[in-house]
Amino acid sequence: MTVRVAINGYGTIGKRVAEAVSLQEDMEVAGVVKRSPTFEAFMAVEWALPLYAASKENIKGFEDAGLPVEGTVEELLDDADIVVDCTPKKAGYKELYQKKKIKAIWQGGEKHELTGLSFNAYPMYEKAYGADLLRIVSCNTTGLIRTLYPLMQEVGVKNVLATMIRRGADPWDSKKGPINAIEPVLKIPSHHGPDVRSVLPSLDIQTTAVAVPTTLMHLHSVAVKLAKDVSADDILEIWDNSPRLMFVDAGMGIKSTAQIMELAKDMERSRGDLYEIAIWEDSVHVVGDMLYYYQAIHQESDVVPENIDAIRAMLQMESDKMQSIERTDRAMGIINPYE
Amino acid sequence: MTVRVAINGYGTIGKRVAEAVSLQEDMEVAGVVKRSPTFEAFMAVEWALPLYAASKENIKGFEDAGLPVEGTVEELLDDADIVVDCTPKKAGYKELYQKKKIKAIWQGGEKHELTGLSFNAYPMYEKAYGADLLRIVSCNTTGLIRTLYPLMQEVGVKNVLATMIRRGADPWDSKKGPINAIEPVLKIPSHHGPDVRSVLPSLDIQTTAVAVPTTLMHLHSVAVKLAKDVSADDILEIWDNSPRLMFVDAGMGIKSTAQIMELAKDMERSRGDLYEIAIWEDSVHVVGDMLYYYQAIHQESDVVPENIDAIRAMLQMESDKMQSIERTDRAMGIINPYE
Amino acid sequence: MTVRVAINGYGTIGKRVAEAVSLQEDMEVAGVVKRSPTFEAFMAVEWALPLYAASKENIKGFEDAGLPVEGTVEELLDDADIVVDCTPKKAGYKELYQKKKIKAIWQGGEKHELTGLSFNAYPMYEKAYGADLLRIVSCNTTGLIRTLYPLMQEVGVKNVLATMIRRGADPWDSKKGPINAIEPVLKIPSHHGPDVRSVLPSLDIQTTAVAVPTTLMHLHSVAVKLAKDVSADDILEIWDNSPRLMFVDAGMGIKSTAQIMELAKDMERSRGDLYEIAIWEDSVHVVGDMLYYYQAIHQESDVVPENIDAIRAMLQMESDKMQSIERTDRAMGIINPYE
Amino acid sequence: MTVRVAINGYGTIGKRVAEAVSLQEDMEVAGVVKRSPTFEAFMAVEWALPLYAASKENIKGFEDAGLPVEGTVEELLDDADIVVDCTPKKAGYKELYQKKKIKAIWQGGEKHELTGLSFNAYPMYEKAYGADLLRIVSCNTTGLIRTLYPLMQEVGVKNVLATMIRRGADPWDSKKGPINAIEPVLKIPSHHGPDVRSVLPSLDIQTTAVAVPTTLMHLHSVAVKLAKDVSADDILEIWDNSPRLMFVDAGMGIKSTAQIMELAKDMERSRGDLYEIAIWEDSVHVVGDMLYYYQAIHQESDVVPENIDAIRAMLQMESDKMQSIERTDRAMGIINPYE
Repeated sequence: MTVRVAINGYGTIGKRVAEAVSLQEDMEVAGVVKRSPTFEAFMAVEWALPLYAASKENIKGFEDAGLPVEGTVEELLDDADIVVDCTPKKAGYKELYQKKKIKAIWQGGEKHELTGLSFNAYPMYEKAYGADLLRIVSCNTTGLIRTLYPLMQEVGVKNVLATMIRRGADPWDSKKGPINAIEPVLKIPSHHGPDVRSVLPSLDIQTTAVAVPTTLMHLHSVAVKLAKDVSADDILEIWDNSPRLMFVDAGMGIKSTAQIMELAKDMERSRGDLYEIAIWEDSVHVVGDMLYYYQAIHQESDVVPENIDAIRAMLQMESDKMQSIERTDRAMGIINPYE
Repeated sequence: MTVRVAINGYGTIGKRVAEAVSLQEDMEVAGVVKRSPTFEAFMAVEWALPLYAASKENIKGFEDAGLPVEGTVEELLDDADIVVDCTPKKAGYKELYQKKKIKAIWQGGEKHELTGLSFNAYPMYEKAYGADLLRIVSCNTTGLIRTLYPLMQEVGVKNVLATMIRRGADPWDSKKGPINAIEPVLKIPSHHGPDVRSVLPSLDIQTTAVAVPTTLMHLHSVAVKLAKDVSADDILEIWDNSPRLMFVDAGMGIKSTAQIMELAKDMERSRGDLYEIAIWEDSVHVVGDMLYYYQAIHQESDVVPENIDAIRAMLQMESDKMQSIERTDRAMGIINPYE
Repeated sequence: MTVRVAINGYGTIGKRVAEAVSLQEDMEVAGVVKRSPTFEAFMAVEWALPLYAASKENIKGFEDAGLPVEGTVEELLDDADIVVDCTPKKAGYKELYQKKKIKAIWQGGEKHELTGLSFNAYPMYEKAYGADLLRIVSCNTTGLIRTLYPLMQEVGVKNVLATMIRRGADPWDSKKGPINAIEPVLKIPSHHGPDVRSVLPSLDIQTTAVAVPTTLMHLHSVAVKLAKDVSADDILEIWDNSPRLMFVDAGMGIKSTAQIMELAKDMERSRGDLYEIAIWEDSVHVVGDMLYYYQAIHQESDVVPENIDAIRAMLQMESDKMQSIERTDRAMGIINPYE
Repeated sequence: MTVRVAINGYGTIGKRVAEAVSLQEDMEVAGVVKRSPTFEAFMAVEWALPLYAASKENIKGFEDAGLPVEGTVEELLDDADIVVDCTPKKAGYKELYQKKKIKAIWQGGEKHELTGLSFNAYPMYEKAYGADLLRIVSCNTTGLIRTLYPLMQEVGVKNVLATMIRRGADPWDSKKGPINAIEPVLKIPSHHGPDVRSVLPSLDIQTTAVAVPTTLMHLHSVAVKLAKDVSADDILEIWDNSPRLMFVDAGMGIKSTAQIMELAKDMERSRGDLYEIAIWEDSVHVVGDMLYYYQAIHQESDVVPENIDAIRAMLQMESDKMQSIERTDRAMGIINPYE
């Protein structure tokens, strides 16, 4: 069975999900939806992805640019098994999806309440099995869940304080700043803690966040009060056996987010993406019952494999969580450190 | 009595200490020491500060540039009551100062062990009274002490976790990066915690730190476990009555370190400096026994008034701590929120 | 005679013009107009500048913030001899000023056509004498005129090609980017050439421009085809005798715009501003009939003294151009290299 | 015949040349030389490239890190047909290569005098045929030659003035600045003009250059005095038929270097590299006999295909210049707009 996946919105996340879908042997891209004939639309056509217009009004723009359009989003939905919504926040397609009776996945810009089900594959695959609607949590929330959930399972976590140093804008975005400032999220604790609890409701977590003038990755400084005595090595072993985490190390020349991104390029990852959360092995310290560590999050791509697993769970294509994660990762070329 | 202060090193801190000294009615600048005829040396002469060469070898360079030199650092020390060492870390003048039997102040780049006495005016003025050697703690440590010491006094502090988002380089420094990366201090907890304890030995504090591509200010995200139940308003009142703190507020348009620096310019502060630690009033939150807040530190100038108080304490010019702080601040044009 | 100057708009330029006016012995600030109670409005009140609201609707906002308002812009205009409009581009006050029969000065964001008279003091003072409306040309245009007009007068200029490397945003602006990109102005030649010709109509000048991730200054790389044979020293002497230019020099440690801004702080300029155009002396080269040089422009302040001269010319307060320039500069603390 | 290529130095350029060599059907990588076991060395091993140590002293470091080493650079040279030197400037291997009687290619950091032959494929392939030593010109010089040489051939060029806005550091380099400044190359005209003439000796070209806080690409603002009357469309057609150029366009959403790099990722280029020079089609303007345009240069990769052609020419593997260029480009996935 090859399921047909519609991608509504072909920007930062949409184009990555489209590529990831096309790499899976049990999925194909039914089509991608775009509003205007940007270079991204040209490249979609170049990669032989069926291109659909967001509305009838948009078709002329594509035609004028010499780009063939297969129809509108409504027609695409009729021809797909599931839709991944990668439109900007609050674009409001829920009603249309329900009219079309199609299963739908949203991204982390949306609120938990939109779907009532927030998703990360490792803790939530079973709960999402057969679901009609869900939301992939944001890149930062995904990063926190990836390292914290295994600790909750294996050690127990009393509470967490995470400070997130966020990139100011994505690499392609030359409009947004700051050029030379640090901008805190003044609502303290920030919304990220509650967002983590949409997946891990029992976790006591507080978060603060600041935006800084960089485009590459977010960096989290995390402090965890553990429920029992373990060593840093124990922690490293737990993470070594958990999905979509990788270790980096100043000894190998990786001292900043810049070198992590260079490593991802050297690994020949598509677009230089890094789907895993990168943990600085040198930074992992246990002092009494407190664990400290830094992790870096590639905001453009860490959620992409989670979208693939969500499709499999919702369409009941694979009942075993770890099987789905491994199939996704193998197809996407993610080194599998947990086998 | 007007004491004569030698400034050894006329860079970022040295030139500010020289100006602050010259603004005090009980002090004057005996001379400033410089190695080469940069624009800073020219401006020292322009401001009528006696210019001394770091060594005999340096004199020719100044003469070639048309800059009058009064002599070398050794001669200056003979003619001064105290020296403020603002040379780069480990320049190693201690022996010379001891030979010349002159009291000496170092800056935060040096280790506590150099002097055995680390200084911030509010908690340490009395201990420094009559001392021969001391070290002003660094800009970040000064920032943490300014907000934490009053809390220790008035509320009690069980422990502190602070994440410091540090500027990558000073505004004038166009050589250092990063241009586009976040670089963590991988030694966790970072050295800043122990440095705070050089002044506040009983404080349980852990710190982490990252460098980011900005030049303006450091920003601290601080979490404090308090010893008793207080409200955010109680905390604000304590800080309102403590020296060298000021509040900023997103409601007034101050959303990042960029607008804080703009405010300092609008306040007509010399060089656009901000001697106070800026606390975002909007960010101060108490959740259970935990207090969260953001503070911003102007790394080029917050330690400058501390240097002035250290001079008064070491030379026993003023026995009352608060009197010294107020005299320093009034002369430097620091708004005095604690009266 | 002390003329009363209304400042409509109290942002980047408005607050600087207000300060410059208050420093002149023949002028005073009648009032400044603001829309909302930001920290800048607070500081206006702190500096005892009469504060007016942009409209009746804005008054409540100020009152709620505890800021005393003297009235609205209309009332201010009744009580002033001239208005300097520093509102954002196209705010459209021209009709009101004409109704109130008040002379008015606009800034470089406006088009030449708004006033029919574009102004820089050195070439245009006489033409502006007694004028009712004029526009101060933009910071970049001001910079080009300051170095090119003396060359036209003393040597003759066949043509000019200038490439402007522009700061992406002002220092206080943490919203705008780019964080990590170079963005060209694709309309080539750019609008800056025609804007220079609004003051120097006979000049054959083409310009290109790119925006880069910095906040401090613009930098111009200029190539001039000269009409006769001169040496670089001849050029330097001409500029040494021209208003509002200064030389900087890598030999003194000034290798980038960062050190120029540091020098301005060391010169104790208000807000760290630099009213002069900074020319790298080391960069001035003549190759055949071609002159090459770099100049740096402090976009926030270079036009400020031009506003003062424009007031004097329009209100016929001083008939001699050089007298006005010198009075302006002396009051503002601008070193006067042309005497 | 498959020639064996040694890569001495496996950093920014070395790793890209290694990949490009391995993609050619007539070449293979004999080995790559590295000094220390960084992540780049790990990835070389991961990609099955034979790893050699720069010296015997370095071998232990690799062994300690668990990385197998095949020998030292001397042994590698015995087993290769040609060496591409990608070591940092002035590493001084020329003597060793001559002792080993091996043909050698250097990169643009070296001076023309080292080899007496400076190379770019389109103008220099024939001259390099059978040569023993040559130097690939730098990324910026390569960019200028790619657009100017076709104009010289087809239209005639009287003179050129180019201003280069250079990235401050490469993306992986988090040590170098500037963070917030523009730094001009004060030697005017800059060395880039003479470097272009090392390949195109008859070209009258002057260049100026500034460094800015970005990591992505260099951008050139170029003004060309043409020898005859042509239109912008004529120019575009010439470039359309010339190697390793591509057009970008604000209308497709490409307004800065950030979007060009995004396009390269969308094109699935390895590491997100762009081997072509990107010309903004919108920027190409002819005014009288003057042509103006902007081009962007991916400093990490534009010289890579030139290295491949140099290997073919020096080893006389292909006598036809255009055949070599096309074989190189096809293997590397470079869209071939000149067919």
